[in-house]
Formats: sequence, structure tokens, C-alpha cells
Amino acid sequence: MAALTKNDIKITRTESSKISSIDFNNLAFGQVFSDHMLICDYKNGKWHTPEIVPYSPITLDPSAKIFHYGQSIFEGMKAYKDDKEDVFMFRPMDNVRRLNVSAKRLSIPELPEAYFMEGLKALLEVEKDWIPTAEGSSLYIRPFIFASGKGFHASPADEYKFIICAAPSGAYFSGKVNVLIEETYSRSANGGVGFAKAGGNYAGQFYPTQLAKAKGYQQVIWTDDTTHEFIEEAGAMNVFIRINDTLLTSPVSDRILDGITRKSILQLAEAEGLKTDVRKVKVSELVEASRNGSLKEMFGAGTAAVISPISGFGFRGEDFIIPEQDASFASKLKNRIVAIQTNKVEDPFGWRVKL
Amino acid sequence: MAALTKNDIKITRTESSKISSIDFNNLAFGQVFSDHMLICDYKNGKWHTPEIVPYSPITLDPSAKIFHYGQSIFEGMKAYKDDKEDVFMFRPMDNVRRLNVSAKRLSIPELPEAYFMEGLKALLEVEKDWIPTAEGSSLYIRPFIFASGKGFHASPADEYKFIICAAPSGAYFSGKVNVLIEETYSRSANGGVGFAKAGGNYAGQFYPTQLAKAKGYQQVIWTDDTTHEFIEEAGAMNVFIRINDTLLTSPVSDRILDGITRKSILQLAEAEGLKTDVRKVKVSELVEASRNGSLKEMFGAGTAAVISPISGFGFRGEDFIIPEQDASFASKLKNRIVAIQTNKVEDPFGWRVKL
Ligand SMILES: Cc1ncc(COP(=O)(O)O)c(C=O)c1O
Ligand SMILES: Cc1ncc(COP(=O)(O)O)c(C=O)c1O
Repeated sequence: MAALTKNDIKITRTESSKISSIDFNNLAFGQVFSDHMLICDYKNGKWHTPEIVPYSPITLDPSAKIFHYGQSIFEGMKAYKDDKEDVFMFRPMDNVRRLNVSAKRLSIPELPEAYFMEGLKALLEVEKDWIPTAEGSSLYIRPFIFASGKGFHASPADEYKFIICAAPSGAYFSGKVNVLIEETYSRSANGGVGFAKAGGNYAGQFYPTQLAKAKGYQQVIWTDDTTHEFIEEAGAMNVFIRINDTLLTSPVSDRILDGITRKSILQLAEAEGLKTDVRKVKVSELVEASRNGSLKEMFGAGTAAVISPISGFGFRGEDFIIPEQDASFASKLKNRIVAIQTNKVEDPFGWRVKL
Repeated sequence: MAALTKNDIKITRTESSKISSIDFNNLAFGQVFSDHMLICDYKNGKWHTPEIVPYSPITLDPSAKIFHYGQSIFEGMKAYKDDKEDVFMFRPMDNVRRLNVSAKRLSIPELPEAYFMEGLKALLEVEKDWIPTAEGSSLYIRPFIFASGKGFHASPADEYKFIICAAPSGAYFSGKVNVLIEETYSRSANGGVGFAKAGGNYAGQFYPTQLAKAKGYQQVIWTDDTTHEFIEEAGAMNVFIRINDTLLTSPVSDRILDGITRKSILQLAEAEGLKTDVRKVKVSELVEASRNGSLKEMFGAGTAAVISPISGFGFRGEDFIIPEQDASFASKLKNRIVAIQTNKVEDPFGWRVKL
């Protein structure tokens, strides 16, 4: 099973590519999809050999458990192409492993790592021409698993589908974001599924985010659900806070996603000689640092936006502005990580994986 | 829009009913589905007129948000048929209202109440012959809404489907259940979505429930995620505890579903002259009551099982047995509520709704 190789993957090509209709210089994020997808079924107690097929609709029974019990998990990653048309992935093994961490928590059967990796490579070879090269753009890759098994009984399904789709995409956020520190709603529970990339975690964020948007903020800063005293994540990103010259971020926990961008930034910052400190950060500390001028930067970190600088935050009706920095950590780290991802500089960390 | 009547609902009948293949005296729970379903689309900013169509697969784009961001909610209710072939629903307006409470929290557009009620009535008329009459059985009805709109952007979808399916069903649990008091995993967060019937809440329960099953328990008793000191729900049911002659249940909160069975039991118990007390119950109080003999009964309450008696509980490696009661509150209340639901006795509460 785990001995699957790329050659075992059957490929059925589309008869009508839509690639010529796409403006690769004006891409939104995750709105157009490439010509093919990888699909792999779990039934009769095992994952079957993945196939590449034309991007096409999925047909499910109305009682499929995905509709009723939220058994779904996903990953988000990107592929890049350099001047020589070589294709690169970024830490893909971390995505496979995290997918299986999520799978376990959601009672979804774990996927053999080779099915993911060989499937992904086969798909990227087929979709090579779909990888945009304009600055800030990439082929956004969405591996996901959901429960296709039937029945109105709140118990794990007996059938699942693993799919990888790809969407040529531009930048996720266009500018700096203004965030609201959330003290009423929460993203995740102690002992819950916050550390998993489970579909249900995202739907629960929409309403509080809409309320924040109505007040003029673009994102929510999630705090712990018990006390709302500690800063946990920024929307669907991990969060970094620079106080004087130290970069702070919360340790991951069962409420916080172990972001690949987050851990890469921590390693990169250390290699660059920047001070980092992984510890819980209180909202009161952030407010205090803003008042006394020691708060220099704040940013979200995640695959989609890479680094998303925060221009200010709202807290209990008061707005705090984070002043512009000349040589910001955010832009320094973002440039460095993107240069590694896109094969413009050496990769001393071994993160980049060539197709 | 809200002025929709049953006659506006177009009905397309199946050409091959499967009803003759069903053994109505040997029904599992939620495993066979009736011939038709109600379907209603939200697009271009509004809910369109529902239709009744043959029970048939649903086709979705791989980027449909249900697969990625867990935007789904559901309801569970039952229809019964009496000796005279009259059909009854139980407090259906409470299901519509709760569906819209869930919708709001999950950023799903609220459904006009008439679409639900008229749609349900039209469906029940078409599916009348599918309502089983054997004791303990009923037509289980599953209204649900999910995000069908496309795109890999973690934001509310622009299209949804509201569907009602029906499954002729036998009893949900066959015997008494032995439960485990859960102190590691949690169902919901303060400020989270636990009070909503959101799909994601259920997937998160599967893994802890499987762990409990491996230890010989059938269900988990959820406690609050902050301290794990307070008893909140029993699996996907509300929980009642009888100490001496008082029936206790936790108040509902943003972590606990406002169960229709729970509130009916409270009203019924009061009408029967039983003492009830809606207050938080500590695990330590339960253990103490078990030790000193004042713990008389414990049961789960929900639409599927109605009342599900608990025979004992495990806590920190110790097993506590709840002795059999002669005239248990559980059986008294269950008989009463089922008699009301199935039109065998008067309904002083106005809960029963005739089709
Ligand atoms: C909740 C949440 N936090 C953080 C992240 C960042 O993780 P990564 O850097 O692996 O993309 C994501 C995903 O992008 C996320 O969904
Ligand atoms: C989590 C949860 N609690 C309690 C209940 C009981 O609610 P009701 O009595 O309305 O069915 C349900 C649904 O059955 C549920 O899913």
C-alpha cells in the first residue's frame, strides 16, 4: 500500500483545457481551478489507489455524513515555478503529517503518506502549466478529505474521499489589516479540535468575523475561550507580535493550529539573529506595549498570505495603531521565506522540495 | 416569500417506489430513506421555492464550501401515525426556530419559516406510507442546510441547499447505556458553536467516543471545557440526573444545545408533580450522590432515543452503578411523552401538530 509509486496513478486527461481562458496576471485567490484533480476513495476498510481525472463535480447521497456531521479536514499549500520552469513545493511532508493529525482527531482513517506525496507530484506534473509566475502568485493546492459514507447516525462514516485540487492564485490579502481582539466568541475549546484543520473550525469563525467587519476590522484576533486574556490566532493564521526587538508568538496547543509558516518563521528569525520568544502573550501586555511604544509590529502568518502585516487593533472600543516600521521584521522575513519558496536563494533548512 | 403555501411546492414523483422492499418491522435507525426529498436552493441572495423530487444524489463542485469550511447545520425530528392513519409532528416550530438560531451562528442565511413548515407538510403528505407504526418506530426527519457555493476562501458561501430527507426508523439505542465522564476532550467552547446544531460539533465527538467505547462505555458525558467539573451533555443528548426525588439538568448555555426533548421533559415533569431543578451539576456531586445512595437515575434526552436510561458511569478509573428503579422517572416520562407524540393521550401542552 505505502509502496505506491507515481506510475501506479492512472491519469485521465481532460478533452478541453480551460487554461487559455485564464488571465494569469490577474488572479484572485482560490477562485479558478486547474483542469485536473486527484481523487482517492476509502471504502471496505482501505484507501484505494488514487487517480487523476478532469476537474469535475462530486456526486453524493443526501445522507452522506459530510452534510450532517462535519467530518472533513483539509490542508493548504503552494507550488511555485522558477525561471527555469522547475517546480517547487514547500515542506510538503509537514502537510501530510498534519493532515493525518487532523484525521485522527476527526476519526477519519489516516492516509498512507505515499498516497498524498505521489498523488501530489503526479498532479503537479499534469498541471505544470497552471503554476503562475507573477510576483506574489502561486498554484494554491488544496488537499482535503471528507466523509462520503451514508446514514443518519452520529458516528464515523465508513467511506471517505481524499481529493487534491489546485487553484492558480494571486495574493490573499492586498494590504495591511486592522484587527479586532475578540472577547465574546471563540474559535476552539480546550480538548477540542482547534489544533486540527477541521472544516467546522472555519464555519464557526465566520459570524464573529462578519461582526468585526461591520465595525471596520478585517480580521479577528482569537483569544482563549476560558479567560479571553491570551492571544491565540489571527483569523485563520498564527500571530506574531514584535515587542522592541523580540518576536513573540504563542506556543501551539490543542486550541491552536501548528502552522508551517509559523514554525518556518521562528527558524528563519533565529537564523537571521532575531530574538524570538515562544510564550503566551496577554492582551493586556499588547495594550501596554502599544501605549508605551514598545509594540513595533504585529502580523499573521499562514500559507495563503505568507505574512500579513497588521496595522492596528481594536480592543474594548479603543483603537490602537501600530506605526509603520522602516525595516520591518515582517517584510524581511516574508522576502526571505518567499525567496526560499521560489528558488531565488539557497535553502539552508531543506524546506524546498523540487518536483 | 414567507407567504409561500403548500400548493406552491412542485412535486415530481418517483417512477419506482422502493417501499415494498422495506421491512417496516425490522428497521434500524436512519439507514433507509424514503422515496422523496424536499430541496430548496439559496442563490442570488434569496431562498428559492422548495420542490419535492425523488430521493436522489447531490452534485457539487469540489470547491463547494461544505467540503472545506464546515458550513452545515441540521435538525432532527419525527413524524408518527396513529390507528386512524392521522399523521403527527412534535413541536415542529421549535425545530424551525432552532435551525435559524444555528443558521445565524454559522453565517448561513436564515430560512423563511414557511419554507420549512409548508415544505415539511408537503413532504409528509407524499411520504405518508413511509411512516412506520410498530412500537418505538417513527419516520425520522432530517432537515439540513449546507454551503454549496464555491471557492477556496474561508468566508461564508454565496449558495446553500436546504434539504429535508426522511428515514423510517426503529429505536435508536436498544438498551441501557454505560457512560464515561470525559475530562480530557470537550464538545464545545465558551463563545463557540455548541448551542447550534452545526455539523462540526458532531465530528469532534467521534474520537473521544471511540476511546470511551474501547474502554467498554457506550457514550461520553461531556463536561465544561474550562474545568471539567460540570456535567453538560450525554453524547448528542441532554442529560438528566435524579437525586432522591429531584430531577436535575444543567441550564442551557452557548455550549449546550437547547433540546426540545429536554424542555418537554421539564414541563412534563412539573405537570406530573415531580420536582425539577435546572442548575449546574458538578461531577463531584454526582459521585457523592452515587456513593451515598441518593443518585436514583440518570438519562439522556433527545429526539432520536427520546429518553435513554444510563446504567452507570465511569470516572477516573472507577465504575459507578446506578441501581434499577421500580417506577423510574425515565420510563414514566418516556411513556408519557411518546403517548403524546403518537396521539394516544391528550396533549395539554399543545405540542402535537396534526398534518
Ligand atoms: C487556523 C489556522 N491557523 C494557522 C494557519 C497557518 O498554517 P500554515 O502556515 O501551515 O498555513 C492556518 C492555515 O493556513 C489556519 O487555518
Ligand atoms: C448535542 C445535542 N444535544 C441534545 C440534543 C437533543 O435535542 P432534541 O431533544 O431537540 O432532539 C441533540 C439532538 O438530538 C444534540 O445533537
